[in-house]
Amino acid sequence: MRIVLVGFGNLGKGLSRAFIQKAGFLRKTHGLIPRVVAAVDEFGAAVDEKGLNLAGLLKTAEKRGTVAAYKGGKRGKLALKVIEDVEADVVYDLTPTNIKTGEPGLTHIKRAMLAGKHVITSNKGPLVVAFKELDSLARRCGIEFRYSASVGGAVPVIGLARKLLAGNEIREIRGVLNGTTNYLLTRMSTEGAPFEIVLREAQELGIAEKDPTLDIEGIDTACKITILANSILGVNAKLKDVKITGITRVRSEAIRLAREAGQVIKLVGVARQGLLEVGPKLIPVGHPLAVSGTLNAVTFELDLAREISITGFGAGPKETSSSLLGDLIDIHRTLGG
Amino acid sequence: MRIVLVGFGNLGKGLSRAFIQKAGFLRKTHGLIPRVVAAVDEFGAAVDEKGLNLAGLLKTAEKRGTVAAYKGGKRGKLALKVIEDVEADVVYDLTPTNIKTGEPGLTHIKRAMLAGKHVITSNKGPLVVAFKELDSLARRCGIEFRYSASVGGAVPVIGLARKLLAGNEIREIRGVLNGTTNYLLTRMSTEGAPFEIVLREAQELGIAEKDPTLDIEGIDTACKITILANSILGVNAKLKDVKITGITRVRSEAIRLAREAGQVIKLVGVARQGLLEVGPKLIPVGHPLAVSGTLNAVTFELDLAREISITGFGAGPKETSSSLLGDLIDIHRTLGG
Repeated sequence: MRIVLVGFGNLGKGLSRAFIQKAGFLRKTHGLIPRVVAAVDEFGAAVDEKGLNLAGLLKTAEKRGTVAAYKGGKRGKLALKVIEDVEADVVYDLTPTNIKTGEPGLTHIKRAMLAGKHVITSNKGPLVVAFKELDSLARRCGIEFRYSASVGGAVPVIGLARKLLAGNEIREIRGVLNGTTNYLLTRMSTEGAPFEIVLREAQELGIAEKDPTLDIEGIDTACKITILANSILGVNAKLKDVKITGITRVRSEAIRLAREAGQVIKLVGVARQGLLEVGPKLIPVGHPLAVSGTLNAVTFELDLAREISITGFGAGPKETSSSLLGDLIDIHRTLGG
Repeated sequence: MRIVLVGFGNLGKGLSRAFIQKAGFLRKTHGLIPRVVAAVDEFGAAVDEKGLNLAGLLKTAEKRGTVAAYKGGKRGKLALKVIEDVEADVVYDLTPTNIKTGEPGLTHIKRAMLAGKHVITSNKGPLVVAFKELDSLARRCGIEFRYSASVGGAVPVIGLARKLLAGNEIREIRGVLNGTTNYLLTRMSTEGAPFEIVLREAQELGIAEKDPTLDIEGIDTACKITILANSILGVNAKLKDVKITGITRVRSEAIRLAREAGQVIKLVGVARQGLLEVGPKLIPVGHPLAVSGTLNAVTFELDLAREISITGFGAGPKETSSSLLGDLIDIHRTLGG
């Protein structure tokens, strides 16, 4: 399969490493030979219709800061040109998230679809801003559209609901969908430390960002719950439909009291017909949502199976490449590969 | 789809109720119209090529103890005759498990395959006794073979590994796969009560069987870990290859000490290349395997995603119908429906 990578940050690099590491496995187990014919970043592009040398590309990008420095690479804003002109089967949009405009991913995805290319993205922005539009456009263009990595990182939340729980009506989705806040709440619970202290330490460790607003105010979780509601419950929801409370007002005292009662406090996103919300909730110890550290977890409430939960790492380039690769294999299978 | 149900105990009845309850959903969401053309139990069979009235069949079976009492039903050992002679697309084998011989399910499944019918089973027996044989026979006969309900009840363990984690190499599978023992260990942990007491109470509540050997000695878990190893890791394992320790020697004192160290004791089945074992293990509170009550949980150790866990109810006729129905939808999709 001929692949275009748009975005060559941590995820683009992580996926490229997975392509190198797993070439034999993919060919042997799935009959799949991924050939990256172009890679684009904000500074330029590298194109080779015979397939880029990924090890060389990674080395160049790491040393020189852009794929444009790869032999024959070009500088400039080339994403749209590459998406439209380079012959390829699948376009990965792995650009950074902008939850207000969805750009640049939104335009990348639309242009790729209109050019008849299948699309895989990890980017929440376009999905939060224009889910229905993209979903319809994919159908109209007759292409496959996958976005497993946009929610839950390595955790195949959307696939679980759509493929494996297909006999059930999904009544409610509840999710611990933000690793940073889960890490903060876990440390507050195990150490009794106050929010400000664990936040500062998490920032020093690189687990929380310098400006942690999107995480600790619950906005990142709200984006993910919006995507889950749209893709699994079939509603037409926007970010503004989610009632959001963050974790900045969760006190160590509340966490201690919860703990004494066999409960933990987690930042939980909830989606069901007519309700979308994010806020701190009490979860009993031993419940699948009561996961520690940076783990993510999602629980589906179902008419037959009652409750099914899935847990794993919600971030990290290597972990997320599990979903990005899974989407590619799924498209390959769907097309009869 | 024309369906034959072989076995009309709790699971057969639960699946029939799901077919009734979800007829509209299955037609609308999946374009699937299940038509049960025959139902067989140990006393006889009911056949109607136009489709049995499931509500009537359930009422008859509950009142008179057998489907043979349904109008036009016949008495006798009719399973093989029905499997071979009644025109149908899919045969469900939902007969009781015999882990020594695999019968009667083993013969039912083979005959159905040889008759060109797709097969769905919940029965661990045939899979433990003859996994490779059945897997090859299914290929040779060109039919679809599914057994999601045989491990984890409602929890789609096998589908998760095969469909959604397809980009990963699976290094290890660890599972809490027996609801009865998990219930016993959970009560011992929360109440500090000794094994004998909680076992007796669980027997009174119907959670443990009168002869609880298969559960508490770890044999049921060993059967499930054998099936997972064969179907996911691609090994050729038999029950005798599993090193088994049950939970009868787990003392409240050990559970109390574990608890003080932030751990719980669970009966865990482990499968990786070259190792199959079942025994009590320490699991940290907050880990996805540290689930309470009758829940089941499975953790996959993976090269890319690191760890993915799934949790849900491992038994119950309604819960298990989620997997039985999921397999039918999956076959319907695979055949292009």
